[in-house]
Amino acid sequence: MTLCNRLLILGLGVIGGSVALAAKHYALAREVTGFAQAEDCQAALRSQAVDRVCSSDAELAVAIEAADFVVLALPVKIVIERLPLVAKHLQSNAILMDACSVKSVVWEKIQATLGERSQQYVGAHPIAGSHLSGFSGARADLFQGALVTLGPGTPPLLKRAEIFWESLGARTSAMSPQDHDALYAQVSHLPHLVAFGLVNALAEYAKQHGAAAAQALPGQLGKGFLDSTRIAASSPDLWTDISLSNRSALLASLDIFEQQITLLKAAITNSDEVSLKALLHSASEFRRTLER
Amino acid sequence: MTLCNRLLILGLGVIGGSVALAAKHYALAREVTGFAQAEDCQAALRSQAVDRVCSSDAELAVAIEAADFVVLALPVKIVIERLPLVAKHLQSNAILMDACSVKSVVWEKIQATLGERSQQYVGAHPIAGSHLSGFSGARADLFQGALVTLGPGTPPLLKRAEIFWESLGARTSAMSPQDHDALYAQVSHLPHLVAFGLVNALAEYAKQHGAAAAQALPGQLGKGFLDSTRIAASSPDLWTDISLSNRSALLASLDIFEQQITLLKAAITNSDEVSLKALLHSASEFRRTLER
Repeated sequence: MTLCNRLLILGLGVIGGSVALAAKHYALAREVTGFAQAEDCQAALRSQAVDRVCSSDAELAVAIEAADFVVLALPVKIVIERLPLVAKHLQSNAILMDACSVKSVVWEKIQATLGERSQQYVGAHPIAGSHLSGFSGARADLFQGALVTLGPGTPPLLKRAEIFWESLGARTSAMSPQDHDALYAQVSHLPHLVAFGLVNALAEYAKQHGAAAAQALPGQLGKGFLDSTRIAASSPDLWTDISLSNRSALLASLDIFEQQITLLKAAITNSDEVSLKALLHSASEFRRTLER
Repeated sequence: MTLCNRLLILGLGVIGGSVALAAKHYALAREVTGFAQAEDCQAALRSQAVDRVCSSDAELAVAIEAADFVVLALPVKIVIERLPLVAKHLQSNAILMDACSVKSVVWEKIQATLGERSQQYVGAHPIAGSHLSGFSGARADLFQGALVTLGPGTPPLLKRAEIFWESLGARTSAMSPQDHDALYAQVSHLPHLVAFGLVNALAEYAKQHGAAAAQALPGQLGKGFLDSTRIAASSPDLWTDISLSNRSALLASLDIFEQQITLLKAAITNSDEVSLKALLHSASEFRRTLER
């Protein structure tokens, strides 16, 4: 089903690359153009995920003017840097959608840059990703069954965005930027930070125990450690960007987490079997309700 | 290959049940007897993982006297409770092996209870498990390719234990109780505790955000959260036991982890992009070296 004529995707990493592949697969657009670094552009062209690519600002300006649907699949920081150029060349009938993991700061900048034309913008955040970086982590089926949160946006644009993502196999759910950022600080940004912390703690442990201990490590790790820290292999640049873009919500989530760790630590310090078992019991019970 | 005549396994949960299934599969013993709670006994008999079961102390005493290989696949606390009975009835030519996740405290109790006969004991810890509990989580191939740490034990018994576990498809590595407990506090017990903490933090967040927010949660979670907290569905009883049995090593690991979280939190609080990126970069690089 063709939803637009000229789809322009800024960023051909895991998300942007997957949007391109899926848009081609489902024939969502008559033409797909990608704007990205040379390596991702080449990979996307080879995979026929895009019909054409552009890499200079001048080419990008032309591509924006030609597009009726523009997707910003870039880190928050780069989205913000690119907004003035996008605003300058965006057609008045075009739709502008982002795919950022953080919504409040993007929405503030959209309003500051686009003013009344902010109503051309609709926010989206696909809850999908890869521990691989760049186009090599992109897959046409990345959004199959995945949730995409939508908002902010006007009702007609929310509807357009819903059709867009559902056409790629996703489920959608509208929420405010504030609710979105608080929720994903807790269920995504915090767990990533904790996984980075667990791996850095192991590095510190290995440093204290010498080179032989460090070398033996890979063979000594169980599935539990590997599964619970797989997201620590994610892109440091992307996660620096997300963590700082959602700073206050993430710090609030960190506080809640540290309180829970403090409770667990106190129970262990005091050899308080009853309290410890109660804490682990609630966690285990609650975790079982979360599996889909 | 028959390694023993009468194998007795105390505990038919994930580990004990899998030892029974694998021992049958590889014909390691002429006869396998299980001692466990009624439910696991019935399930193990139905699966033909054991030839016979016993559930009373009197039956257990008889089974110990008949056994030439006794495996203690029980929580540390129960192993310690059972040691006097085991010591009383263990034959002088029999081998006693545990499968506990913690070694120092077990070894201390073995020495205190068995005295000179401690040389009949060899420690083992299979780095394998399941988020399921009881015999329902047992699998004949659970140890295929898994590491089993061995020790303490005399050289001939370490060799017997090595043959035992390698016959079930495992790799083995000998280490001292102290080294074992420090390592697995860091790579297993800490990550479990952190996963329990992440889930309890989400429960606290949900409580703060009302019933509707809590109900919507399962559909809003990404693969990252689910993978990184899957071990939080583990048995609260088992993990209370492990955490308190390895208390001092776990508290040391918790300290190292909290220092790393403090560094990450400071970088975010100060919007210090350079420091945050450096921390995430080391974690991401190190994590990539740990995947087998």
